[in-house]
Amino acid sequence: MKKLLLLLLVAPFIANAQDEDSIFIKKLSDEILRNGKAYNLLRQLTKQVGGRLAGSPQMVQAEQWGLKTMKEQGAELAYLQECMVPHWVRGTGDKVLVSTIDGKIATKQLDACALGNSLGCSKTIIADIIAVADFDELEKRKDEVKGKIVYYNAGFNPTNIRPFKSYGESGIYRRNGASRAAKYGAVGIMIRSLTESTDNNPHTGSMVYNDSFPKIPAVSLGFQDADYVWQLSRKSSVKVSLLTHGQMLSDTIGHNVIGEIKGSEFPDEYITIGGHLDSWDLAEGAHDDGTGVVQTMEVSRAFKALGYKPKHSIRFVLFANEENGTRGAEKYAEVAKEKKEKHIFALESDAGGFTPRSFGLTMSNAQMEKMQPWLKLLKPYGTEDLLAGGGGADIGFLNKAFNTPLAGLEPDGQRYFDVHHARNDVFENVNKRELLLGAVNMAGLVYLVDKYGL
Amino acid sequence: MKKLLLLLLVAPFIANAQDEDSIFIKKLSDEILRNGKAYNLLRQLTKQVGGRLAGSPQMVQAEQWGLKTMKEQGAELAYLQECMVPHWVRGTGDKVLVSTIDGKIATKQLDACALGNSLGCSKTIIADIIAVADFDELEKRKDEVKGKIVYYNAGFNPTNIRPFKSYGESGIYRRNGASRAAKYGAVGIMIRSLTESTDNNPHTGSMVYNDSFPKIPAVSLGFQDADYVWQLSRKSSVKVSLLTHGQMLSDTIGHNVIGEIKGSEFPDEYITIGGHLDSWDLAEGAHDDGTGVVQTMEVSRAFKALGYKPKHSIRFVLFANEENGTRGAEKYAEVAKEKKEKHIFALESDAGGFTPRSFGLTMSNAQMEKMQPWLKLLKPYGTEDLLAGGGGADIGFLNKAFNTPLAGLEPDGQRYFDVHHARNDVFENVNKRELLLGAVNMAGLVYLVDKYGL
Repeated sequence: MKKLLLLLLVAPFIANAQDEDSIFIKKLSDEILRNGKAYNLLRQLTKQVGGRLAGSPQMVQAEQWGLKTMKEQGAELAYLQECMVPHWVRGTGDKVLVSTIDGKIATKQLDACALGNSLGCSKTIIADIIAVADFDELEKRKDEVKGKIVYYNAGFNPTNIRPFKSYGESGIYRRNGASRAAKYGAVGIMIRSLTESTDNNPHTGSMVYNDSFPKIPAVSLGFQDADYVWQLSRKSSVKVSLLTHGQMLSDTIGHNVIGEIKGSEFPDEYITIGGHLDSWDLAEGAHDDGTGVVQTMEVSRAFKALGYKPKHSIRFVLFANEENGTRGAEKYAEVAKEKKEKHIFALESDAGGFTPRSFGLTMSNAQMEKMQPWLKLLKPYGTEDLLAGGGGADIGFLNKAFNTPLAGLEPDGQRYFDVHHARNDVFENVNKRELLLGAVNMAGLVYLVDKYGL
Repeated sequence: MKKLLLLLLVAPFIANAQDEDSIFIKKLSDEILRNGKAYNLLRQLTKQVGGRLAGSPQMVQAEQWGLKTMKEQGAELAYLQECMVPHWVRGTGDKVLVSTIDGKIATKQLDACALGNSLGCSKTIIADIIAVADFDELEKRKDEVKGKIVYYNAGFNPTNIRPFKSYGESGIYRRNGASRAAKYGAVGIMIRSLTESTDNNPHTGSMVYNDSFPKIPAVSLGFQDADYVWQLSRKSSVKVSLLTHGQMLSDTIGHNVIGEIKGSEFPDEYITIGGHLDSWDLAEGAHDDGTGVVQTMEVSRAFKALGYKPKHSIRFVLFANEENGTRGAEKYAEVAKEKKEKHIFALESDAGGFTPRSFGLTMSNAQMEKMQPWLKLLKPYGTEDLLAGGGGADIGFLNKAFNTPLAGLEPDGQRYFDVHHARNDVFENVNKRELLLGAVNMAGLVYLVDKYGL
């Protein structure tokens, strides 16, 4: 009865607050959809800078662009935060040829690319291939592996509704496939690209060597060429000629780009919003993660344009090195810890600039429950769920350091792996409205966290 | 208390049934995502047939393709249903040039296309333009209109979250703009294309003349050229040279393509699923509505592949003439009425082959309430809402004739008007998984309606 009475007393205030919030989020939406700069900024980043792997001259350009743009988009303060980053270079002249051992089928050059962090070979490797469906088959046939190039045919499971689930399941072949094969004496590996796209663009991405085994070259094949190699290997003995030039140079200097708006009530409590500025070298890094970068700055711009003064300090962070080291994120959390900062929330956009559908959350049940009533405020803009699980590779370090609650923007994922880490991750494959709607939902969520805490 | 008791008794059965349904819908999903033919069928329709306006030779080809494919995709019976259709032809050599009256700015050819059903001019019309924001401005300036070409600048409202809402608001300029201007003596009109796309492709679509006024030519401008004309008209007097060749020939014969699976329990009660086979002439009609066509046949294929025997008879209908007359749909409902058929439900897919998000419903509140518990069965596949309002232009005739409850597939709409009725509505702009997921949700909904009725 007491509870009911309390509810009756409090209800009008809740309703009022919700109206106020709903009005303000509509203002944010109108501002972003009408005057948003994110699309044009993305054009600058992708077309004027282009691919920008940590350590590359393009990444230095990107940092300067980020610093300048961060100030223009409404941050009161913008600066670079230095960190050491890995420095992998692809080199030039990579080539993968396939032929049957009996010579009956003409040699074909495959559309392939070296996996990120993989090391090249001093000269062309020519070896028979052993084509396996997965690690289980590799283990069963381990005695056949010595001196061969292993081809892993493990593709996405098409029955998964969320392609990210498939990426989670098949990603292990890219990351660990080389060392698992090298353990049995393989001299190189090829994987099926982590995609369901029907084109033939090969997809790169991070791999790691296990120091216990030889560091053999590793490449990824386009979808059609993967089919070709797999089918050829079903009926013939196949050999491959493989030449790659990857090199891991000494660590070098990189920077996070950080913008800040000071909190009016809790200046020492931080909300972080971010995406990563680096990208793989072979594309423009539009969806991965140019879109997260420009959405982050769009939130800053919209707050400024509406004269919104946040209670908490807000940091807009363009992380230096998500793709092959997360060293930028590590540094950001490390410095925050040294300075004994209080980090109350972090939000990341690193799943493409597609129509927003949900936020994935890493936080306590109590915090998640607190967020649920906000769902109806965000639903008109596309957010249909606030679900457990998610966040982001970069903001993950804040959670480890401070137990900071995390949210990751989860846009519709069906097209993401068509372009992810491939040469077609270009500006032209980003839709302006989808991109801006992501920023609308991000701005709305940050506003609510800033206003009500977690 | 009685109700509670009943609930306690019934609950386990409900739970059981939901499990069974959930298992079967998962099977449908797996079948479609693993073995779906829709994408390859769409490639055939768009690349082998191409644009296929009612009355065109391509539409005859499309009907033959549809009939053959309908049988191959699992219909027990497939046939053509004759109807008369309008026969508009664009002709060739359309040209729109713009220049300033003072000759200070060089003449520019605009990327323009005649609106569907509009009539050409016997010779080039050269006239000053009067550029207006909307009908309100036209009315205010009606005395200036005589002898001029009216340019309507009414574009989409970017703050609408759903582009279909914007289309609803601005579509009236395409449909009625010509006669509203002709009333005041205009000699031609130009409109801003109904799109928010940043490219310059002009978008066609149906217009209608009011017989009380002269039938003047009407064209649509690409987005960039619309901006150009509008801005030019703000600072200079502008004239336009306009030549179009549209002709409305005598009505001709067209056909709906109909496939059927006979119901095992209620063979005389029909569920209709459909999309429209016709498209505008200047594109491949991929999203509009090749995707609806192939999704419709995918549902048929998946039912057959899983050995599903529906209780009700199911009709898979490829409508003959959605774009400029809806005569196929009219005929379908007319024949059904003559035969005193019972139509218990109809589902249409005509909003693009994008990731499914909801179904829009036209039915009684009681029917809508009956559907709500199904939401959790469809949610894993993308359907987040079952909302009032929606259906489709073709199945609308069944609702008028029989009060048949309707559902329309509502995919994510952000990209639809980038390609709608424009030359870039091509196969390459359809994503395979998004297309198949639409079919999954359609199949699931039809299965539930078939099993439980409405």
